[in-house]
Amino acid sequence: MNISPHGRLTRGASSLQHYLEALLSDLQGMTGGEVASYIPELTRANPEDLGIALVMADGRIYQAGAATTEATIQSVSKPFMYGAALARHGRDHVLGKVGVEPTGERFNSIILDEENNRPFNPMVNAGAIATAALLTEDSPEAGEAQMLSLFSRLAGRPLRIDPEVFRSEHETGHRNRAIAWMMLNSAMIEPAPDLVLDLYFKQCSVLVSCTDLALMAATLAMQGTNPVTGEQIFAPGVTQDVLSVMTTCGMYDYAGQWLYDVGLPAKSGVSGMIMAVTPGQMGLAVYSPRLDAVGNSVRGIEVCRRFARDHGLHACTSAPDPEGAVRRVYSAREVPSKHQRSAAERAALEAGAGGCHVVEVQGPLYFAAAEMAAHRAIGLAAQGGTVIVDFARAGSIDRAATALLSQLPGAVADKGCQLHFTETAAAPHGAKLLAALEALPGGMPEGLLRHATTDSAIEACEEAVLAAAGVTGPGDSFRLAGLDIFRGIAPGHIPLLESAAATLSYAPGERIITAGEEARAFYVVARGCVNITVPTASGGTRRISSAGPGQTFGEMAMLDGGRRSANAEAQGPVMCHVFSIAQLQELGAQHPAILTAILGNLARDLSDRLRLANEMIHSFG
Amino acid sequence: MNISPHGRLTRGASSLQHYLEALLSDLQGMTGGEVASYIPELTRANPEDLGIALVMADGRIYQAGAATTEATIQSVSKPFMYGAALARHGRDHVLGKVGVEPTGERFNSIILDEENNRPFNPMVNAGAIATAALLTEDSPEAGEAQMLSLFSRLAGRPLRIDPEVFRSEHETGHRNRAIAWMMLNSAMIEPAPDLVLDLYFKQCSVLVSCTDLALMAATLAMQGTNPVTGEQIFAPGVTQDVLSVMTTCGMYDYAGQWLYDVGLPAKSGVSGMIMAVTPGQMGLAVYSPRLDAVGNSVRGIEVCRRFARDHGLHACTSAPDPEGAVRRVYSAREVPSKHQRSAAERAALEAGAGGCHVVEVQGPLYFAAAEMAAHRAIGLAAQGGTVIVDFARAGSIDRAATALLSQLPGAVADKGCQLHFTETAAAPHGAKLLAALEALPGGMPEGLLRHATTDSAIEACEEAVLAAAGVTGPGDSFRLAGLDIFRGIAPGHIPLLESAAATLSYAPGERIITAGEEARAFYVVARGCVNITVPTASGGTRRISSAGPGQTFGEMAMLDGGRRSANAEAQGPVMCHVFSIAQLQELGAQHPAILTAILGNLARDLSDRLRLANEMIHSFG
Repeated sequence: MNISPHGRLTRGASSLQHYLEALLSDLQGMTGGEVASYIPELTRANPEDLGIALVMADGRIYQAGAATTEATIQSVSKPFMYGAALARHGRDHVLGKVGVEPTGERFNSIILDEENNRPFNPMVNAGAIATAALLTEDSPEAGEAQMLSLFSRLAGRPLRIDPEVFRSEHETGHRNRAIAWMMLNSAMIEPAPDLVLDLYFKQCSVLVSCTDLALMAATLAMQGTNPVTGEQIFAPGVTQDVLSVMTTCGMYDYAGQWLYDVGLPAKSGVSGMIMAVTPGQMGLAVYSPRLDAVGNSVRGIEVCRRFARDHGLHACTSAPDPEGAVRRVYSAREVPSKHQRSAAERAALEAGAGGCHVVEVQGPLYFAAAEMAAHRAIGLAAQGGTVIVDFARAGSIDRAATALLSQLPGAVADKGCQLHFTETAAAPHGAKLLAALEALPGGMPEGLLRHATTDSAIEACEEAVLAAAGVTGPGDSFRLAGLDIFRGIAPGHIPLLESAAATLSYAPGERIITAGEEARAFYVVARGCVNITVPTASGGTRRISSAGPGQTFGEMAMLDGGRRSANAEAQGPVMCHVFSIAQLQELGAQHPAILTAILGNLARDLSDRLRLANEMIHSFG
Repeated sequence: MNISPHGRLTRGASSLQHYLEALLSDLQGMTGGEVASYIPELTRANPEDLGIALVMADGRIYQAGAATTEATIQSVSKPFMYGAALARHGRDHVLGKVGVEPTGERFNSIILDEENNRPFNPMVNAGAIATAALLTEDSPEAGEAQMLSLFSRLAGRPLRIDPEVFRSEHETGHRNRAIAWMMLNSAMIEPAPDLVLDLYFKQCSVLVSCTDLALMAATLAMQGTNPVTGEQIFAPGVTQDVLSVMTTCGMYDYAGQWLYDVGLPAKSGVSGMIMAVTPGQMGLAVYSPRLDAVGNSVRGIEVCRRFARDHGLHACTSAPDPEGAVRRVYSAREVPSKHQRSAAERAALEAGAGGCHVVEVQGPLYFAAAEMAAHRAIGLAAQGGTVIVDFARAGSIDRAATALLSQLPGAVADKGCQLHFTETAAAPHGAKLLAALEALPGGMPEGLLRHATTDSAIEACEEAVLAAAGVTGPGDSFRLAGLDIFRGIAPGHIPLLESAAATLSYAPGERIITAGEEARAFYVVARGCVNITVPTASGGTRRISSAGPGQTFGEMAMLDGGRRSANAEAQGPVMCHVFSIAQLQELGAQHPAILTAILGNLARDLSDRLRLANEMIHSFG
């Protein structure tokens, strides 16, 4: 017995594990049906075996019972061969050779769609043989190697053919041989029937456990990407077609009843294997050898039915929540940029920064989710100003979402508004979105990506508001007495302060303060902008604040003279007034009012910033 | 012409609006097919008319072209009547009377499922007549009134029958009459065929626009709740069954091809109407009178096919993103409670609070999403301590999620961990979850809901950590000299401070400070706990911080003596030392070192709190 080697087995006291074990024990007593007996090898299966396996979207595996017991894959091979044919020949060619209609006849029916000169669908034997014909190579070895390679990549481990079963199938498959010759007679297939049947019997004789099948099913669920190995095995369009055919033709010959009762694409085989797929969520497989009159595993059907019902997996039940796609909407007034502002600037922004709005999207952006995001963005554009769509928390972005979002710049521009898409680098499918924007008739709308981060986009909006309000900061000719940090100091004391300051220049990007250094001075920016950054876990830095002309940094040195907790870096050319802590303390000893005033101003500023931070924390709620 | 009255029309420069208009203009030149002519009234339709309407999950409407032009609903009435029959008689009874299999025959075929003595499905005429029989009343008026009431509630406006069409259908419906008599002959129906056919002809003669149909379709998409009126018209189980039948039997007689190509549940009528449903996302309807040989609107089919393809709506393509269900996972060390802590307490928590973890879930909790949340919670439980699942941002919680989450307490307890579910009151479906927990074999697990908020659950964990570390705060016998706010004050000055303080007691819940009051004192808690709260938009208050023995509040009065920005309330019985600002300032004038020390301590404390707040803001990212 071969255990799937990926070693990501989820055992232990999970709810779902309990559920599977309870289900297994419920069904142990269900003894209806008979083990397939048309070849002797199948009769050797233990009729009591019952195994269930689930593979989740991230590759985690649940198992219960005989989940690693191997049996031949039989007809469960058909959807994968159909996928291979679609991938090799394209949809139109394959549709010309095999239809997609349920027949209402037995799986081994010899009835063919004579109107269209093709078998009805690839899940009945005739259609599967026609599909194998599309994949038949000149030598039996080459066909076998390609088929085994595909199945092994789907199962995430090397699979092999059971030679006994293959020999039996080959020796007793008279009916299938008849079907193949009849199709050759009608020119439905082209290669020699012997080569086609060799491949067909081999594909049915591959040994799998239901854990293997659950992973193969999960690969169909995840649009062709194996969630354990990460390999993209089928294109998404191929899995859509495979799952469609499984939905209508995979199980019973009664398409309507299966969709009505279970509502999942599925496929069964006469060895007692069944696999079912929940698109985007998981693959499920069951092994139990006793079959009903139609040839489906009795307990396998019951597991699918109950699992789907108990977990709301029916295709017509899915309830996405498009409104959840917009995580929050806020204005620059509620969450300002990290550019530190003076009291006068803050007041001007309080009054004017409402015209800059951020729409934070989250989760997978599919049709209705992207429509909701676009709707919110367009609604905000009606208020004028700037709209920022922040993609930092976006999940997958599908084609529909890409199309809707790529038309958003035009819609927002129609309202006379600016639009920025920010944090696209963080979005897993951001690159696809950007490519779609490039491909727009007029090319990428100018300015759409001007700001990589939401912080810098908001900062630019704030600068515009301040410029419009005529609040431009003190420029490079401010007076020390006018600085927030020196507020309330007697005019007579100002010259004393001036004498304590040195003026220093820094080149763009130059480090002014480094975290960990001893703190011996505080700084007033005279010209330019200084970014305060902290080291990140990944070895880079992240801006937590910035200071412009007339603003201070490093002032915590006043309190303890300990070590710096952050870096300060010149953004462009920068000039600073630097105050030595030692000199200031000396000054304070002689004139306590100077020290009291500075400490009071410092506490007031910290208090303002704490209030802003708390408001920001609340706005996340 | 009657315009839908709900007045939530979305027009303007949205991307989707552009898309619809472009699609409309693309298809104007598509002139294949013929207007239905079996009764004279239908031939009067304008063959050039083309209307498209969409209704989104939140009831917003998109329209293009002849979206408000009325025509008779014809066979698009069938799914709604089927839903009404399921609602009235239950699934088993209805399945006994009408099957769910596609026929492969024309819609007006007289072939019946003789093996099961029922018509094949409710979307062909025979099945629709059998369905109408299940809804037939003793008088034609009563049947009509019930049917019209149902359709009107689905469309969100009063609908009416076109008397001319009804008369023509009634006079020329010989084939349907034959079907009804044949079914009576086989006892497939029971009421008098005349009454049944009266209802059937009336249901087909109701006038609707495609905007009406889009809303009716959206009601099926939203599990039976009309997204404009909010009325729950069908139970979710009923819409699942209706949509299943629409998927396999609604359109072509070729179930496989429709699911393969379009992949949406849909229904067409001979007036040229088609509606299609994307579960959980939207309803789509098209009106264009020219029909193909099968009786479906030529341009209607093309709109459905292109819309589904362009927006990734195929049932086998959906790509949920279960990993997105866990918004973030953090420990109490990263985001502590709002209980204000002394430096010693903070140090103890820094060392010990890692054993308390919060799993914040977000968005709709369906099977794979809830499984992911449970998986993360169980993983954290393996680290020991306490696991908190925060439901504040959860969307819908379906039955599968409820089942998985209700088993989580047991799974976490198995690992020797405590579990709390918090913020359930904020979750739209929290009540359903709680009911499922109550229904567990052993009842609601003890302690699971002990804390309503994540803040208080974290606070309790912190208290446990502090108790274990022996850091219990100064109790009620601390010395003023040991308080953070008086750190660094010369021992000789302490008696001066003591003389400036008064000691006051407060009853549980008593207001100590009210926001907006003049600030004339600051407070040191001597005994008990004081909550700092701010008013919320909804008229309540929200805790932003708390202070225990030896901690201060209202200290900002030291800086400006302005107005209070927050409330302070006694949590239980509280005793405080109250320092008058006026007295302290007098003291500071005589002894500047006292003032300098207090201001420095205040700034240091603010700086610490600002750092924590910034870390918290970053951890949201």
